[in-house]
Amino acid sequence: MDRIKPRTLSGFMELLPQRQVQFERMVEALRKTYSLYGFTPLDTPAIEASEVLLAKGGGETEKQIYRFTKGDTDLSLRFDLTVPLAKYVALHHNELTFPFRRFQIGKVYRGERAQRGRFREFYQADIDVIGDGALDIANEAEVPAIIYNTFTALGLRRFKIRVNNRKVLNGLFDALGLRAQSGDVMRTIDKLEKIGAEKVRAILTEDFAVPADTADKLLALLATKDPMSALEHYRGQNALLDQGIEELSTVVGYMSAFGVPADHFMVDLTIARGLDYYTGTVYETVMLDHPEIGSICSGGRYDNLAEYYTDKQLPGVGISIGLTRLFFVLEDQGYLNDALLTAPADVLILPMTQDLSPAISLATTLREAGVRTQLYTEQKKFKAKMNYADKLGIPYVIFLGEDEVSAGVCAVKDMGSGEQVKADPDQAVALIQAGIRQRSTGTPIQDKVSEHMRGQP
Amino acid sequence: MDRIKPRTLSGFMELLPQRQVQFERMVEALRKTYSLYGFTPLDTPAIEASEVLLAKGGGETEKQIYRFTKGDTDLSLRFDLTVPLAKYVALHHNELTFPFRRFQIGKVYRGERAQRGRFREFYQADIDVIGDGALDIANEAEVPAIIYNTFTALGLRRFKIRVNNRKVLNGLFDALGLRAQSGDVMRTIDKLEKIGAEKVRAILTEDFAVPADTADKLLALLATKDPMSALEHYRGQNALLDQGIEELSTVVGYMSAFGVPADHFMVDLTIARGLDYYTGTVYETVMLDHPEIGSICSGGRYDNLAEYYTDKQLPGVGISIGLTRLFFVLEDQGYLNDALLTAPADVLILPMTQDLSPAISLATTLREAGVRTQLYTEQKKFKAKMNYADKLGIPYVIFLGEDEVSAGVCAVKDMGSGEQVKADPDQAVALIQAGIRQRSTGTPIQDKVSEHMRGQP
Repeated sequence: MDRIKPRTLSGFMELLPQRQVQFERMVEALRKTYSLYGFTPLDTPAIEASEVLLAKGGGETEKQIYRFTKGDTDLSLRFDLTVPLAKYVALHHNELTFPFRRFQIGKVYRGERAQRGRFREFYQADIDVIGDGALDIANEAEVPAIIYNTFTALGLRRFKIRVNNRKVLNGLFDALGLRAQSGDVMRTIDKLEKIGAEKVRAILTEDFAVPADTADKLLALLATKDPMSALEHYRGQNALLDQGIEELSTVVGYMSAFGVPADHFMVDLTIARGLDYYTGTVYETVMLDHPEIGSICSGGRYDNLAEYYTDKQLPGVGISIGLTRLFFVLEDQGYLNDALLTAPADVLILPMTQDLSPAISLATTLREAGVRTQLYTEQKKFKAKMNYADKLGIPYVIFLGEDEVSAGVCAVKDMGSGEQVKADPDQAVALIQAGIRQRSTGTPIQDKVSEHMRGQP
Repeated sequence: MDRIKPRTLSGFMELLPQRQVQFERMVEALRKTYSLYGFTPLDTPAIEASEVLLAKGGGETEKQIYRFTKGDTDLSLRFDLTVPLAKYVALHHNELTFPFRRFQIGKVYRGERAQRGRFREFYQADIDVIGDGALDIANEAEVPAIIYNTFTALGLRRFKIRVNNRKVLNGLFDALGLRAQSGDVMRTIDKLEKIGAEKVRAILTEDFAVPADTADKLLALLATKDPMSALEHYRGQNALLDQGIEELSTVVGYMSAFGVPADHFMVDLTIARGLDYYTGTVYETVMLDHPEIGSICSGGRYDNLAEYYTDKQLPGVGISIGLTRLFFVLEDQGYLNDALLTAPADVLILPMTQDLSPAISLATTLREAGVRTQLYTEQKKFKAKMNYADKLGIPYVIFLGEDEVSAGVCAVKDMGSGEQVKADPDQAVALIQAGIRQRSTGTPIQDKVSEHMRGQP
């Protein structure tokens, strides 16, 4: 037979079982956190009509889209979860209750150039709150708390949420007489961290006709350690700026009530998050030890979710985590908590009798008690059977021979300690459950907090 | 602005929030049951190289495939989870431990003709046990137990698992001298339920040259109430048949040890499940009250999972549930348990003070205790706020005014009973958790057992 060489496409993540369990544990932590904040799960098709998905049109994204025809229908794979949400909300508007709070964790597709750590199929984990006509600023204040609790639940410690407000930026540009070149100015200051203040100043003054003293003023404001105080000096100059300062103050003001520690949160006036979608608060989240990977959770407030589909005004606020890329980085950098159980079963039963019925009955009892049980029935040498449990990291093995069967007990071996005890089924359940609880305590990520606290000033 | 009419493609399921929660509850029940049997979760890309995915080639399936090019790569969306599994096992053979037990619940794509209850994007929920070179018959005996426990966990009661063995069928055809027309005979007897014994007999004798007495013998065997006893008469006629009878006896023999009640299980010699893939035990599962929808869980034993990719012999046994179609039928026929909570939150907090801090703190306390809490912060009339909780089915509402804040309590209203009590945060947690537990008891499906027991003889 002519055989085809099996392969997985480059840019498509396919995990081995242990890693898959770790990935799903992260997904589960996200689901749980999002649910605690009253978000309902949503699932939409991965394929949409191209006309619908590309309603907004243009841009870099369109080139990356997986687009094709089936019959005479022009189809595209979704490239994010926001456009399908906009369609969903516009389509089902009359059947939804607003504010509509949904989370969605699903695969999206972008035909990017393949490179290490970049994926063409990847999971996004999004939450959004959509208002019908209006949405209170308090929702924007709650989002950093959700980000904080999400990453804390995952086990990440050394991260910081950066917050800004687009009204502040736009108001500031107006106040400084930079409205005409606001887009260029925004793109330039976005490079501050990368190229430094000197170069940014040069570009602003030379390329975009920003007066030198205005550039200095702007750079001074962006460099300040206490942007909220600095912004106070700009109050009263224009309405948009005042509103932005007010909103930013509200968001900052509620942080401690929401339980976000001061050292996990900062106002950063350089953050813009693109030019045309966001209209209020914007968010970025950076890993303190890996700033090079950029923001791991971003989003913001927008005024019009679904303008391409409906004349209804649907303001909202949302954030997105690029989960596949994050998982890749965490694995690559050794952040995954390998101490947590990843075995497919809690216990492996090795029947030592010809008739499997006693072993099957014991397996049934264990499963009914919630113990994940595998019955090993292959015809192999004893050593191969033990090796199987060992390779999979199954923490307990049960031997069931004639003697045990007639005594109504089984022999339970703890694969970690090597200890072996005789136990009746109830005792076996209790013993295994206690051991599993111990091996299940901890977060999916293990941050290197102590290392850093030792190594850094 | 020119607007695009929002729409979801026909043949693609997109659920409203309440239904989505019910769907996910079913997925969760499947995940839990599969995990109890020692299956590890797996996820593979939805897109594969066409050359890999279509290695087997031909057939009805190929016409239905979503196939397209991106750059110069020929790509296809997966149409089942078995081919990607075969690729995965062949590709990662050296990194896996055998028997390899995995479950996968994911979307697959088939461009079928759109019709009610048929989907182009649908979830399959598969389990497979793959051996390396060999796989013990005990695995085939365990599968009906997994099917039984899966549907029982979902809450389905009136279903029956039908089991057959391909070696029995093929051996029987050999014994009856029907080897040459075995494919035609198999396809014909597969229609027994639909067209009846008379017509089957006519087709067999007239179209496929089956001698009349052979046809009678075969039909008598297929019609018997006790096929295992009837098969005993055929023992010793050929090796394949003997082996098949042995295997089928083993599978049947272990059923009660595995906890499958006799009335949920039967041997049905008419089941074949396709012509060329399965080689041993085969399974079908039917809803007793909806035989018209066909099998809701099917599968069987195969000898060669990945022959298109590797020369390694990888026998296995697996089953698949077409989850999207099943959910459609269950919803359509009123099987979903609407008594279970589908609200996005357990409690809605209505802050009655200007400063939101006390409400935020209370929300944080509730969430830390695991209570799914939404803070309602929109500027609306009181009635609109209550209406919001009501429409979403949120079971509790908390009012927090100046008086409550200064007394360190809150007012908790049970939306079901209308009862309202003052409670401190700990009491509120306990009260709400008790109510939620009560509203969470039950299975995703509510079978109409009692109705049928009343209505039928």
